[in-house]
Amino acid sequence: MRVRVEAEVRPTEDPNKVLKALRNLFNMEFKLVERGRGWASWVGESEDLTSLLPLKRAIQAKAVDETFYKYLKRLSKGTQNLLIFKLNKQAAYAGTPSLAEEDVESPLGAITVEVEAEDVKKVIAWLTGKEGEVSGRDEDSSVRQNG
Amino acid sequence: MRVRVEAEVRPTEDPNKVLKALRNLFNMEFKLVERGRGWASWVGESEDLTSLLPLKRAIQAKAVDETFYKYLKRLSKGTQNLLIFKLNKQAAYAGTPSLAEEDVESPLGAITVEVEAEDVKKVIAWLTGKEGEVSGRDEDSSVRQNG
Repeated sequence: MRVRVEAEVRPTEDPNKVLKALRNLFNMEFKLVERGRGWASWVGESEDLTSLLPLKRAIQAKAVDETFYKYLKRLSKGTQNLLIFKLNKQAAYAGTPSLAEEDVESPLGAITVEVEAEDVKKVIAWLTGKEGEVSGRDEDSSVRQNG
Repeated sequence: MRVRVEAEVRPTEDPNKVLKALRNLFNMEFKLVERGRGWASWVGESEDLTSLLPLKRAIQAKAVDETFYKYLKRLSKGTQNLLIFKLNKQAAYAGTPSLAEEDVESPLGAITVEVEAEDVKKVIAWLTGKEGEVSGRDEDSSVRQNG
């Protein structure tokens, strides 16, 4: 499986603050990619599901797992291998996972998360603590990286 | 007359970069007002029309005076004393005056400019170099501060 996370750094933003927002929810290395004219993006890639562990914990700590589950399930309809969702960057800075349907809802640009997996429904179940409903197991071990 | 300018500093922004954006277009003192939870705003007030001089110059240097004139004229319909318009904060950082109809078009939050004057149409004419069309005079001196 593969996880790719990207967040824009707008001209008036502090790149370190954007990185802090990302690190609140993702456990992976990020590199700053210059887009020119004062614009840049932090981009992180990982082949390890544990990169999403801080997000999983935040979803459950904030008791937004039901919201995430329904939303991600709806997003994943009609696709088995690819899941793309957006998170609010300002909320992420405060450590809160908050879904952004459109960039508009995340006024400084959203964090875009792309997950490629053999079966993204299993990833969604793992992320939102709904594994029992999918596999009958209830621990993190039920989803494995598929390379 | 009175000019009030406000721009939010979102949690992932650098307050100094937002201030730089403001100083590119406004010649006035700004103070940072804390809104709590990592949010703040730069607020500037002036009773002097020269506070808008950098904006006026940028409008004319970028040859967007016609756009601004039409837009501000439309905004000022039905009101004589108060004009409120929004500018894109990211464009301002680059020194470019760019109108933002909604905050949505200015993804980091817009710069809000409030002008109170005896006749805002005169201010609009001055700002966009259309003074000849209003008063027959063509220099900055044709608009005076009204206290």
